[in-house]
Amino acid sequence: MRVGVIGGGQLARMMIPPAIELGVELRVLAEVDGSSAAIAATAVGDYTDAATVLAFARDVDVVTFDHEHVPQSVLAALVAVGHAVRPGPDALAVAQDKILMRERLTAMGAPVPDWAVVRDTDALRAFLDSHSGRAVVKTPRGGYDGKGVRVVSGAQDADDWLAGAGERGLLVEELVDFRRELAQLVARRPSGEVRAWPLVETVQRDGVCAEVFAPAPNAGSLSGEARALAERIATELGVTGVLAVELFETADGRLLVNELAMRPHNTGHWTIDGAVTSQFEQHLRAVLDLPLGDPSPTARWSVMVNVLGGPAGATMADRYPSAMAAQPQAKLHSYDKQSRPGRKVGHVTATGDELESTAARARAAAGFFQD
Amino acid sequence: MRVGVIGGGQLARMMIPPAIELGVELRVLAEVDGSSAAIAATAVGDYTDAATVLAFARDVDVVTFDHEHVPQSVLAALVAVGHAVRPGPDALAVAQDKILMRERLTAMGAPVPDWAVVRDTDALRAFLDSHSGRAVVKTPRGGYDGKGVRVVSGAQDADDWLAGAGERGLLVEELVDFRRELAQLVARRPSGEVRAWPLVETVQRDGVCAEVFAPAPNAGSLSGEARALAERIATELGVTGVLAVELFETADGRLLVNELAMRPHNTGHWTIDGAVTSQFEQHLRAVLDLPLGDPSPTARWSVMVNVLGGPAGATMADRYPSAMAAQPQAKLHSYDKQSRPGRKVGHVTATGDELESTAARARAAAGFFQD
Repeated sequence: MRVGVIGGGQLARMMIPPAIELGVELRVLAEVDGSSAAIAATAVGDYTDAATVLAFARDVDVVTFDHEHVPQSVLAALVAVGHAVRPGPDALAVAQDKILMRERLTAMGAPVPDWAVVRDTDALRAFLDSHSGRAVVKTPRGGYDGKGVRVVSGAQDADDWLAGAGERGLLVEELVDFRRELAQLVARRPSGEVRAWPLVETVQRDGVCAEVFAPAPNAGSLSGEARALAERIATELGVTGVLAVELFETADGRLLVNELAMRPHNTGHWTIDGAVTSQFEQHLRAVLDLPLGDPSPTARWSVMVNVLGGPAGATMADRYPSAMAAQPQAKLHSYDKQSRPGRKVGHVTATGDELESTAARARAAAGFFQD
Repeated sequence: MRVGVIGGGQLARMMIPPAIELGVELRVLAEVDGSSAAIAATAVGDYTDAATVLAFARDVDVVTFDHEHVPQSVLAALVAVGHAVRPGPDALAVAQDKILMRERLTAMGAPVPDWAVVRDTDALRAFLDSHSGRAVVKTPRGGYDGKGVRVVSGAQDADDWLAGAGERGLLVEELVDFRRELAQLVARRPSGEVRAWPLVETVQRDGVCAEVFAPAPNAGSLSGEARALAERIATELGVTGVLAVELFETADGRLLVNELAMRPHNTGHWTIDGAVTSQFEQHLRAVLDLPLGDPSPTARWSVMVNVLGGPAGATMADRYPSAMAAQPQAKLHSYDKQSRPGRKVGHVTATGDELESTAARARAAAGFFQD
């Protein structure tokens, strides 16, 4: 069994341990030498070049992804010669284009924020006028971790983006009055089986995931609603592998779909240490069309804290003596990246019977890696 | 941080996932191409050749082991040029030579079976005469998984081994009337910290570990005794890394030390899925002299069942569709080895709140891989 992963970031990296345990051969097409997933990199090249990707795919049973940026033309070339691509191009298109995502979600009746496509200042003004003067503008493509997203309060605030947006336009959405952000992860295999991890709460800072609480505290009936919603989205879009549904819990207690990601997701990293089957193992099972594993939590609470930036002028490993001595229970994960402000260089997970103390331990451990 | 592992078997293989998670670079000196640990193999060569091992060790921070067979002359060569070797040669010598092991354990007052060194038939006859006519004869070196061990009931029964034993002789031990076998694993770092996993029960078949129950059921005060004993052995022998103390629980309820192993051990595989810190992560921490992790179990019960032999004419992966569908909670571990009668090709771990059902699930999952 050989799985080819396009992209050598930390998501590819974290697929390697379960691949080793299961005896799955993982091959990575990395962007650069010395990537996070270098130990499994069998090729280094440009994922936007069809010839490069076709050559990489020749010896694997299925192609999957560390990110959603592989062009549709390259995906089409893979499919044309018979390669299994999971998730497939049609599903991935929905994760690649935020306007298409809103169209598809709206068509299936999934709850989403008010939205429109705007191609000029007048259209944006009209949306602002009908939404209390503030809104969120998003570029349809290429955004992640807060990039390509802007809160606007004037019709000219997106003129620079509109100038480059062309006929596709920009997505504009209501600025949701939300109580908190949630994420529902599921995995689906081609034969249709879907498994869901518990709904989690995510804390974003500057558009980047900072902390995750699993399961989401006091979620009540939202847990079941989120699960049913994510399972339906996975099925209707024909997603294979892990699907992350980022959600708002509105001030009045409703769920709205914020974003979709079709790959293992930052809000699922806790599953490595806190669930019977991690999102990385489950992604491998799913794209190989193997029966899915039990996603049950192994602890009452898991709290994941991202290591953002990393220690200045040092590596995470430099801080292991103090961090490990202080927090012997914390699970430390390094992505083998150089420190750089705001960069995701690792994460820490703690598990326990009580939420506050578990969160305190995770934060304390992560704190050793941030100056 | 670079750890060099001599030997490319499944123990080296299972060090790779925690090395990736921690961002530790693991380099393996494998015996052959295509070893279990091939993904981390940076060299292939003969571990009995000092030049080969010295060349391998040049670029790592510490040298450790997949097995205990590296000759003392090679270990001495490593130490002579300043390499950190963990466990060190003096400790390893005790695991390499069963007569030395009995001498050292006896000298420290650890409970062991009656034993003697025999160099001829008369000496063996004398031992048999004073031990009800039956005994266990062991070659001092090179034995594992039941090899180099023979139950004898006549003075001539070991003549073939005696002929080749030379001045060192053979170890002869009383045939212990035991209730069950147990194993106590601890880890120790050079600066002295020791951490212990719970005492486990092991079921051996034909001298090979078949099943492990963690923690050992109904162990009572033996748990504390075993822990104290293993911690003392680790400290007095100056072991660094994981130490496995294989024990007999005698019919009258005493502990006797059977064997020692100074590396991750089959009886600790359950810790990958059933403890906060696995034996493989802990071994890396210990040999790097990092603070040790919490060895607490994450479930009430963990049961590990070895996959011995593997499916005839097939791989474990060939059976994944049926095994995974039937046992979605089971953790499946493949060592990427060809099937061969009796060979350890993988293992399965199940966790749960109730021992019998947990064992049943582990056995059922393992059963898919054995014809």
